[in-house]
Amino acid sequence: MSRSREGLKAAGEWSALEPLLPDFRGKAVLDLGCGYGWHAKYAADHGARRVVASDISRRMLERARKINRHPTIFYRQEAFEDAEYRPGGFDVVLCSLMLHYLSSYDQFLDKVTRWLKPGGQLIYTVEHPVFTAAGSQDWEYDETTGAIRCFPVDRYYLEGERDAVFLGEHVTKYHRTLTTYLEGLLRRGYTLEHVVEPQPTEEMVRTVPGMADELRRPMMLIVSARRGGRKGGQPGGHGM
Amino acid sequence: MSRSREGLKAAGEWSALEPLLPDFRGKAVLDLGCGYGWHAKYAADHGARRVVASDISRRMLERARKINRHPTIFYRQEAFEDAEYRPGGFDVVLCSLMLHYLSSYDQFLDKVTRWLKPGGQLIYTVEHPVFTAAGSQDWEYDETTGAIRCFPVDRYYLEGERDAVFLGEHVTKYHRTLTTYLEGLLRRGYTLEHVVEPQPTEEMVRTVPGMADELRRPMMLIVSARRGGRKGGQPGGHGM
Repeated sequence: MSRSREGLKAAGEWSALEPLLPDFRGKAVLDLGCGYGWHAKYAADHGARRVVASDISRRMLERARKINRHPTIFYRQEAFEDAEYRPGGFDVVLCSLMLHYLSSYDQFLDKVTRWLKPGGQLIYTVEHPVFTAAGSQDWEYDETTGAIRCFPVDRYYLEGERDAVFLGEHVTKYHRTLTTYLEGLLRRGYTLEHVVEPQPTEEMVRTVPGMADELRRPMMLIVSARRGGRKGGQPGGHGM
Repeated sequence: MSRSREGLKAAGEWSALEPLLPDFRGKAVLDLGCGYGWHAKYAADHGARRVVASDISRRMLERARKINRHPTIFYRQEAFEDAEYRPGGFDVVLCSLMLHYLSSYDQFLDKVTRWLKPGGQLIYTVEHPVFTAAGSQDWEYDETTGAIRCFPVDRYYLEGERDAVFLGEHVTKYHRTLTTYLEGLLRRGYTLEHVVEPQPTEEMVRTVPGMADELRRPMMLIVSARRGGRKGGQPGGHGM
């Protein structure tokens, strides 16, 4: 599920995400929807004590085990819906571009909140509600010239399944409003630390064809939140 | 600037905003862009010790002084850019649908942060970044049938002036990203308490012509944030 197939720097959001990542030293980290394992490897390389990296895709995990092998990373194949971990076992939960594939955000938050220590940090990236609302995930084009007219928003408050087309394949995604994403965290006592819509860097706009159009719409949202509103996250600590 | 010309209940966002308002009893309240004074009156009616309500429009204030007169409300005509208040003088700052007319959000936050007590609450409503991005604030229509196709998003990351048309008049508004709105608060040490995109109630959708279309796009954003991350806001207290 990760787009990081050429490494972290190939992912458009990396320059916005990296500064928001915590000091991983001594931390127990869970990477949900780890894909090829780039974020897990980054955490391990930056001193994480233990990284559990899970994904539903056997094919991705096979590759992750090859290209992002590390003694402190444990790769696991599982559907998020079936995953179970020890309560309070993680200092940090990462989740890159998986949430819009899950039918239940509440289940996601309930589980992650259980697995995080009080004071622990959840950082996720997700497709932006603007990007998922209408469903097609394609621009509106001028019928005569074929040029992009705008990006369409529709059905914004009608949350739920969307049938998107990605590289010619139909994919089911789930649209949620920004309100749902943020209030779900606030209602569970999280403190929001960052809410960032990553945008292409000037260099990307200059050098990558078509990238200038990505200044016209937000595609992604990064949210960083701390459980229980307490700082801390002492390595190995018990929080409460 | 307020749309509350028929009272609070006529404003589409009121049912989402009211539950987010604080207990006003004993509080010093500043209402920026007060329009006809409906929010100021609400705060006064709910026990505010003192309400300063300011707006740039003489016409609106004249009407406010007639229809929403109250012994604890002081109406003032002033441009926000010229406003100055005593540091730490307010427990609550309200600002309804004014921010998208201001050229500088940083100036707004710097001033409000100075005027709020530590632990004080800022609640604002603003036109949603989705609504302000492209500029026209109008739907995309099917050229043949004239039916709404979608709401257009464009120039999302290009913040700044937009030329909008409202009731046939050209109005200058300012577009900002969600990131700018929220990170501006977080960077100044605010705790986000609520981020809500108000949507029409079922009753409004059923009874108001055209209202069903407002489920297709977000028009407004409500943000509630607490200065300094400290609860408190004791009436008359000094915070720190």
